[in-house]
Amino acid sequence: MLELRLVQGSLLKKVLEAIKDLVNDANFDCSSTGFSLQAMDSSHVALVALLLRSEGFEHYRCDRNISMGMNLNNMSKMLKCAGNDDIITIKADDGSDTVTFMFESPTQDKIADFEMKLMDIDSEHLGIPEAEYHAIVRMPSSEFARICKDLSSIGDTVVISVSKEGVKFSTRGDIGTANIVCRQNTTVDKPEEATVIEMNEPVSLTFALRYMNSFTKATPLSSSVTISLSNELPVVVEYKIAEMGYIRFYLAPKIEEDEDETKPQV
Amino acid sequence: MLELRLVQGSLLKKVLEAIKDLVNDANFDCSSTGFSLQAMDSSHVALVALLLRSEGFEHYRCDRNISMGMNLNNMSKMLKCAGNDDIITIKADDGSDTVTFMFESPTQDKIADFEMKLMDIDSEHLGIPEAEYHAIVRMPSSEFARICKDLSSIGDTVVISVSKEGVKFSTRGDIGTANIVCRQNTTVDKPEEATVIEMNEPVSLTFALRYMNSFTKATPLSSSVTISLSNELPVVVEYKIAEMGYIRFYLAPKIEEDEDETKPQV
Amino acid sequence: MLELRLVQGSLLKKVLEAIKDLVNDANFDCSSTGFSLQAMDSSHVALVALLLRSEGFEHYRCDRNISMGMNLNNMSKMLKCAGNDDIITIKADDGSDTVTFMFESPTQDKIADFEMKLMDIDSEHLGIPEAEYHAIVRMPSSEFARICKDLSSIGDTVVISVSKEGVKFSTRGDIGTANIVCRQNTTVDKPEEATVIEMNEPVSLTFALRYMNSFTKATPLSSSVTISLSNELPVVVEYKIAEMGYIRFYLAPKIEEDEDETKPQV
Repeated sequence: MLELRLVQGSLLKKVLEAIKDLVNDANFDCSSTGFSLQAMDSSHVALVALLLRSEGFEHYRCDRNISMGMNLNNMSKMLKCAGNDDIITIKADDGSDTVTFMFESPTQDKIADFEMKLMDIDSEHLGIPEAEYHAIVRMPSSEFARICKDLSSIGDTVVISVSKEGVKFSTRGDIGTANIVCRQNTTVDKPEEATVIEMNEPVSLTFALRYMNSFTKATPLSSSVTISLSNELPVVVEYKIAEMGYIRFYLAPKIEEDEDETKPQV
Repeated sequence: MLELRLVQGSLLKKVLEAIKDLVNDANFDCSSTGFSLQAMDSSHVALVALLLRSEGFEHYRCDRNISMGMNLNNMSKMLKCAGNDDIITIKADDGSDTVTFMFESPTQDKIADFEMKLMDIDSEHLGIPEAEYHAIVRMPSSEFARICKDLSSIGDTVVISVSKEGVKFSTRGDIGTANIVCRQNTTVDKPEEATVIEMNEPVSLTFALRYMNSFTKATPLSSSVTISLSNELPVVVEYKIAEMGYIRFYLAPKIEEDEDETKPQV
Repeated sequence: MLELRLVQGSLLKKVLEAIKDLVNDANFDCSSTGFSLQAMDSSHVALVALLLRSEGFEHYRCDRNISMGMNLNNMSKMLKCAGNDDIITIKADDGSDTVTFMFESPTQDKIADFEMKLMDIDSEHLGIPEAEYHAIVRMPSSEFARICKDLSSIGDTVVISVSKEGVKFSTRGDIGTANIVCRQNTTVDKPEEATVIEMNEPVSLTFALRYMNSFTKATPLSSSVTISLSNELPVVVEYKIAEMGYIRFYLAPKIEEDEDETKPQV
């Protein structure tokens, strides 16, 4: 039996909005430690990893490890029916082929039960090794989202270059070129407005903007984003979920020589 | 000669927004007691009845009973040109084939006259007998609108079931099922936030969500909605218009046996 | 070498939004006195003239007169990447075939350079003679925009008639007719809310609403608009740009006799 009660139900709504356009179907894995998901995007280029730790739930009961295959689009349709202040409880009986989302309004005057069919999804869980990164940039998530959106109006790829002074985002397209430099800045009123750069080695890597823009759908989950970069490793774009866990997106850099081949089909 | 001056002109704008998607052409009936309309929707499944009593107008002159056929879409186009704070006057000369809508800005600096051609529309006025209802639910109109919209993302029909404890809205579709229960609740700060259930007999009736959603376009007219239900009678969904009258929507329940036949063409 | 630094960069963003739908490609002319543009719309019916005087820039360096051909749609794409509080600098080297737009955030933490290719555009600069107008109407720009939009839902052309008492905007279409009268009104709290009419002779002229609506895209630039009318002269619709200059739109009136021929292709 599974019963996970999340007082701040809007978090789960935001998680779904963050990943549903990237991933169609995925297994949610439940264990005593938390509620998690790992999935490739539908074109098998990007990887998303979600963790919501059990401590973040008001009530967390998971009698045995269980993996529940869900269509994220359908799950999102149901979660959209929850109010932003609703408490959300995820429930499943052992051996059942359905999951139930229960939404309670803050006043308890309105109680909704949405029951969704589960799916069998083949998936292998990739071990993601801990890695040393050449550079780690933390910046306001809204700023990062704005930059990805702006550059998309000019080109298809972004070059992210980190030096001690700042991080540079560059693109080029038919109508011209664009370079945006954000400087390290730690003397801000609110810590989440800081731009902090930890750098061991300068890096300069190229990524498809289409995926970066998709990752920024997680912006409502966190006021800052952390971008970890190393040559020849996938970039990690991480949004922390306060007191509960994170969403991490992994994307391999584009190699200059065969840029056309690796170009994602839009 | 007809001259009806409505200080709160935005009411008339909202009335048109509430019915124009349901009804294409309709006769507005003017008499000494008020300005009214009764019309079937274009697929002859739902009925809408509007009443604006003469006392609600600042000035109300109607020398003789008159029935004016209007295209509601064109009338809505004209009323959209009125400001939300404008005074609206409806004018028609005896025997004229046009009606004039006059909009006066609150400062009287801007005066607009919109003249619209009238139409000949055949219509029979249905007598709607007063009926006893098994259950009457009054609830916040925005809550009802939210529930109809939410359930539409899961299924095509809604089962409304009333018991002493509350009212339940249920649907089922390809992706699963949904049940939303609203409990009776009269201990609220504002009377319009109450959910009040008067029940003589339990009822459970099925309706097309498409029509329910259409009715909720009247939500801006009133903060509460009253739903009157009886087995084998059309449901009445009523929005009161403060100090003037009402909009009422009538819809026959779907019979389980021939559900497919009565399914509306979407 | 050209270097124009505009502290209130949002002005340039609004200028582009005002003209980019009317004009595809145009030469921006730079001289020691200012930054200007004159262009016909793509169907050669309307003329737009822009002036931003050098005094309005924080820094203005223009070593020699230069004419830079730009695709306004591409330029708009780049300027949309500037924040509303950003300082915008326009830079070009002598003989270069590119122009650079630099955006500096108020805190100087984010600096962006957008480089756009220039185009060769044939254009002749029309001398626009100073003219005496029969009537000049100054009114709130938002009111004028609202009227043009409202009348477009009824008809294709607007008749603008000026008398001492006020200005009347009229149209007619398949569904009926509309007349909107704005009265002279100078006793307002804020001068920009005034409607002021200077009239030597009554005028009544007909214009295509499609163009009028296009001109009102300049509404965010100024709280009032000035409409100058004379029989057999193009109307001038002017939006002043505070302390810098103006955007003026010129449009020939439609002649009644050959109305169908001069009707713009929509």
